Amino acid sequence: MSGGGDVNPLNEWTASEIAAAVAAGRTTREAVMRACLDRITAREAEVQAWTNLDPGRALDAARAADREDRGGPLAGVPFGVKDIIDTEDYPTEWGTPIHRGRRPNRDAACVALTRRAGGVLLGKTVTTEFANLHPGPTRNPHDLARTPGGSSSGSAAAVADHMVPVALGTQTTGSTIRPASFCGVFGYRPTYGEHRLNGVMEASGSLDTLGILARSLDDVALWRDVLLGIAPAPIADIDRAPRIGIYRPHIWDEVEPGTRALVENAARDLAKAGADVRDVKLPAEFVGLNDAHRWISSFEFARNFTWEIAHHWNEISETLRTGRLADGLGCGFERYLQMKQLAETSRRRFDALWQDIDIMITAAAYGEAPVGGNTFASAPLYMMSTVLHVPSLSLSLPVFKGPHGMPIGLQILARRHDDRALFGWARWTYRALTS
Amino acid sequence: MSGGGDVNPLNEWTASEIAAAVAAGRTTREAVMRACLDRITAREAEVQAWTNLDPGRALDAARAADREDRGGPLAGVPFGVKDIIDTEDYPTEWGTPIHRGRRPNRDAACVALTRRAGGVLLGKTVTTEFANLHPGPTRNPHDLARTPGGSSSGSAAAVADHMVPVALGTQTTGSTIRPASFCGVFGYRPTYGEHRLNGVMEASGSLDTLGILARSLDDVALWRDVLLGIAPAPIADIDRAPRIGIYRPHIWDEVEPGTRALVENAARDLAKAGADVRDVKLPAEFVGLNDAHRWISSFEFARNFTWEIAHHWNEISETLRTGRLADGLGCGFERYLQMKQLAETSRRRFDALWQDIDIMITAAAYGEAPVGGNTFASAPLYMMSTVLHVPSLSLSLPVFKGPHGMPIGLQILARRHDDRALFGWARWTYRALTS
Repeated sequence: MSGGGDVNPLNEWTASEIAAAVAAGRTTREAVMRACLDRITAREAEVQAWTNLDPGRALDAARAADREDRGGPLAGVPFGVKDIIDTEDYPTEWGTPIHRGRRPNRDAACVALTRRAGGVLLGKTVTTEFANLHPGPTRNPHDLARTPGGSSSGSAAAVADHMVPVALGTQTTGSTIRPASFCGVFGYRPTYGEHRLNGVMEASGSLDTLGILARSLDDVALWRDVLLGIAPAPIADIDRAPRIGIYRPHIWDEVEPGTRALVENAARDLAKAGADVRDVKLPAEFVGLNDAHRWISSFEFARNFTWEIAHHWNEISETLRTGRLADGLGCGFERYLQMKQLAETSRRRFDALWQDIDIMITAAAYGEAPVGGNTFASAPLYMMSTVLHVPSLSLSLPVFKGPHGMPIGLQILARRHDDRALFGWARWTYRALTS
Repeated sequence: MSGGGDVNPLNEWTASEIAAAVAAGRTTREAVMRACLDRITAREAEVQAWTNLDPGRALDAARAADREDRGGPLAGVPFGVKDIIDTEDYPTEWGTPIHRGRRPNRDAACVALTRRAGGVLLGKTVTTEFANLHPGPTRNPHDLARTPGGSSSGSAAAVADHMVPVALGTQTTGSTIRPASFCGVFGYRPTYGEHRLNGVMEASGSLDTLGILARSLDDVALWRDVLLGIAPAPIADIDRAPRIGIYRPHIWDEVEPGTRALVENAARDLAKAGADVRDVKLPAEFVGLNDAHRWISSFEFARNFTWEIAHHWNEISETLRTGRLADGLGCGFERYLQMKQLAETSRRRFDALWQDIDIMITAAAYGEAPVGGNTFASAPLYMMSTVLHVPSLSLSLPVFKGPHGMPIGLQILARRHDDRALFGWARWTYRALTS
């Protein structure tokens, strides 16, 4: 899973490899940063993953960390930050001309925690407008004609294109899992509520989480602990095969047949490898959860951006005005509350489904990244699990490819707060499917 | 409850009275603002409720609204905003020298919603440091030797002193209910999660809510709807006497005997007025909820302010460093998760206690505001109900006074999401206790 670090160019190393090599004095933070910047110089005109990036500042920061020999579990690791997350040294513009040049005076909690662990900020990555549907300029590095997926578009594309080993995203619908699947990297959405969002733009407070984009599962696990402000622990070895449920949300027919086949074949292969694989029967009321997601997120979103609606209506995209905002402004409070209550009772019901199951597997997207700017393809696939507040991972598997050779992720869900166990089961699954 | 509006000076009018008079052309927004500013000029040197306030700007805003005859349910209502809530036209400094001059480029959602409803921003009110324990300069307007309570100190004091009809606070422990009780105004903490916090400093995301400070229950209900972005509805008349539970958390012995007697006497009087009054038996595990509050809030707080810890440790008060931050940095993730899970299961158990109860009553503080700067007195009284996410009100009753004539509030709790019903029952209660 982690490539043979030392033989690859530095910009292709994982965060774990970089931190180990820096700690051992086998490379410098400056050399790593320079390799990432060189890659960006070569590719950014095409990929357009970055919104604010100052190579001189990034190199200075890396050199300063070298001089002070700044340690930490992410020592010398360059990282990208989605542009709805505040940073002291770059503007944070939320993907909208309305906030061009907006300049916070401090780092968001997640950025400060990453720097404290030795990470070196590379720059800010493109987000869709307000982390909603209207796309930014980023293109899929595997095929520039295709979308990278949104809303964490730049973070996923930059990691996939070896411009940076890891990048921060967020998720309110599928904004981490989707671009991870489309770009062929690991994406992780944590259990709702575990990570702090001080300094992160609130889109819909009842659903928002951070997201991690990385090229290795070890990096996901490592950064998750750093972002929780706790001592990182390696992924634990699993001493038995997992009990796996196949999770087919009611929109399963909308998932492309080839993608469904990938998931069913994976289930078969995992059973062969010793897993106890079974179908998950979802409670009937779960059909209402996509509506719950729609109305909860829209009601909250429309209120969060009251200032922008009042003062900058004409600078808001038509997509957002006639979509999420129209939904949110038209949604009554009774409906909103009803949907919140459905979400809460469904979480309890979902908890009960894990009696004999460790993880659930499903598709991480309907199929390959579509051609064009449909940043938000596959949205219905994420709405239910996001409302359920469970952690999810998009595993990037060499065996998961669509008809055009584009990546597709295998999505793995776990019970709320079982994030650490999820990593262990995910590694078992990854090995079983790639051995 | 609403005074005889027209005969009192304008700065003593409630928000509802002001909006009605402005709509009817019986007064101007400028005249109301001027009356509030005059009161501030007379009293601010003693009370010190405001941190940033520009009389010229406030008057200009009121005059502009007059010229455009700007309508809305809060037309012409001056409002104060706790200084952890972003405003476009004033710095937002979080009660710490670290963020002196911090200047957001936009209004928080709650501020923008209030302005859209016709409210006119008067200025920013004093918060304790990071809305935590270390006090600001504000003094209790009823007795300058006493604390106004925190953390929404300035908002409560300004409303109590007739400097402004209504002011925004927040609550993570008892930061709205406590100062409301100490200053003798109405305080309202909504059900967790209903109001948006975009642009509000996150202290502890699992517990933070907005808070409303006002001099009438009608104003609380009106502003609550405005802050939800929904059409305001008047408080509904109640067609039967409520079923009332007496809520005595396990720290009830710490509440002063005189205050406990006020609550018990109120219960007796409410029964006489027709209410069905009974004792509430709390599940045994609720004893752990104050610990749950302590560790959840501290764990989250310490991560949210990682940037300040890294760069400005010496500018953080000793109180905060050795209190909340020491707790939070010393709290392991397992303990944090365990406490979150206790909180969640306790919420479900608490839901079950409302089968035969409409509201619960308890004390809004241990007793009168103490002499000196103990902004956070009575904290254990609020921890449990805050963790339970239920809405609460501090009723300001003329009959509730301590031994020194200082106000004490009657706290009323309701089931989660029953906020609107809570207002109806609270009015019934208020009338029963003051008729």
